[in-house]
Amino acid sequence: MADAVKLYGVAGSPYVCRVKIALNLKQVKYDFYVEDLSNKSADLLKYNPVHKKIPVLVHNEKPISESLVIVEYIDEAWKGVSILPHDAYDKAQARFWAKFVDEKCIPALYKGIGSHGRAVEEAHEQLQFLENELNVKGSKFFGGDNINLVDIAASFIAFWLGAAEEVIGVKVMPKDKFPKLTEWSDNYVNCQAVKDGLPPRESIVGFFKMRFGKA
Amino acid sequence: MADAVKLYGVAGSPYVCRVKIALNLKQVKYDFYVEDLSNKSADLLKYNPVHKKIPVLVHNEKPISESLVIVEYIDEAWKGVSILPHDAYDKAQARFWAKFVDEKCIPALYKGIGSHGRAVEEAHEQLQFLENELNVKGSKFFGGDNINLVDIAASFIAFWLGAAEEVIGVKVMPKDKFPKLTEWSDNYVNCQAVKDGLPPRESIVGFFKMRFGKA
Repeated sequence: MADAVKLYGVAGSPYVCRVKIALNLKQVKYDFYVEDLSNKSADLLKYNPVHKKIPVLVHNEKPISESLVIVEYIDEAWKGVSILPHDAYDKAQARFWAKFVDEKCIPALYKGIGSHGRAVEEAHEQLQFLENELNVKGSKFFGGDNINLVDIAASFIAFWLGAAEEVIGVKVMPKDKFPKLTEWSDNYVNCQAVKDGLPPRESIVGFFKMRFGKA
Repeated sequence: MADAVKLYGVAGSPYVCRVKIALNLKQVKYDFYVEDLSNKSADLLKYNPVHKKIPVLVHNEKPISESLVIVEYIDEAWKGVSILPHDAYDKAQARFWAKFVDEKCIPALYKGIGSHGRAVEEAHEQLQFLENELNVKGSKFFGGDNINLVDIAASFIAFWLGAAEEVIGVKVMPKDKFPKLTEWSDNYVNCQAVKDGLPPRESIVGFFKMRFGKA
């Protein structure tokens, strides 16, 4: 039996894109079901009754929710390139940084964007940890020569942040302060699996324009 | 070379106890370094510069932070009983529920306790998901016949919650509404590896008395 792989989401969500990028890396074909978030489908409510949120991956009728949980599942369920390191310690470090991006970095960046670049101290503090990490590793990606869980988790920084900066007209992650992260962003969005998973930039710009009253 | 395993924490923390229980399950010997949280040690700040929080596990001088990340590391680094399921889908489900306990359940329970049992709606809503999960599984533990990541994540519910209920004089998780969770709590705290990882109940009661002005 061929694998039946369904992904429920919206193209513009950085969390949904994590899943798309992981599926692309593994060269898994999937059907994408676009959700109307103001009128969620019966399928979404059935598959994710706890959070009622996207993304949901449904693999042979078995649903999985929470983007980082899904990415780890994809890594284990399909062969091909590895998304997590094999070594137990390196794996723990990858999980640590992915969690850090989710819980510390993205909220601080939203605060920086939402304040139109006035409240960036916390964002800079958190981004500095990632900048240092790239410096210490001395590699192209958080995953080394290839992208891993941390790179995927940080998709928001590589792609969404720039669109938001364009809309508010302020650099929340200035290149002179974060040269490694800036270089990483460019390298990351140029990976084919990433490119194929990202939404058109203009739709993200449009979203932030609406959100920040600049439309 | 023998493994050098150090754990930095305080005995009363449910997050530290997750790590202790996982180490006990794997029968790993470790040295426990008690932290003074009002005056954190240079070691803690060195080992967890990002969050500066306990628990931190240091295995042969390599530090790991974030309790659930540590528990997964312990499962991979040491042989013995499995803390996560082997099947990729079951593993994803365990991670999903552990994350749910952390992000939804424990905050809702704190709200219920902090309101002295007046604001329990959200806690009941979240606990109901766990009650249903135990019902669907029909097993003694979230892990089946043996405890797994989800049981360990839910240590707060099994042990700390009861002590808080005693102090505020209200049942936030009433037995008639949550019979499975109540039974699970009893079974869980009676596992030897758990018992050996928990603090004395009276010290938790003392903590909540202080916190809720009942000392």
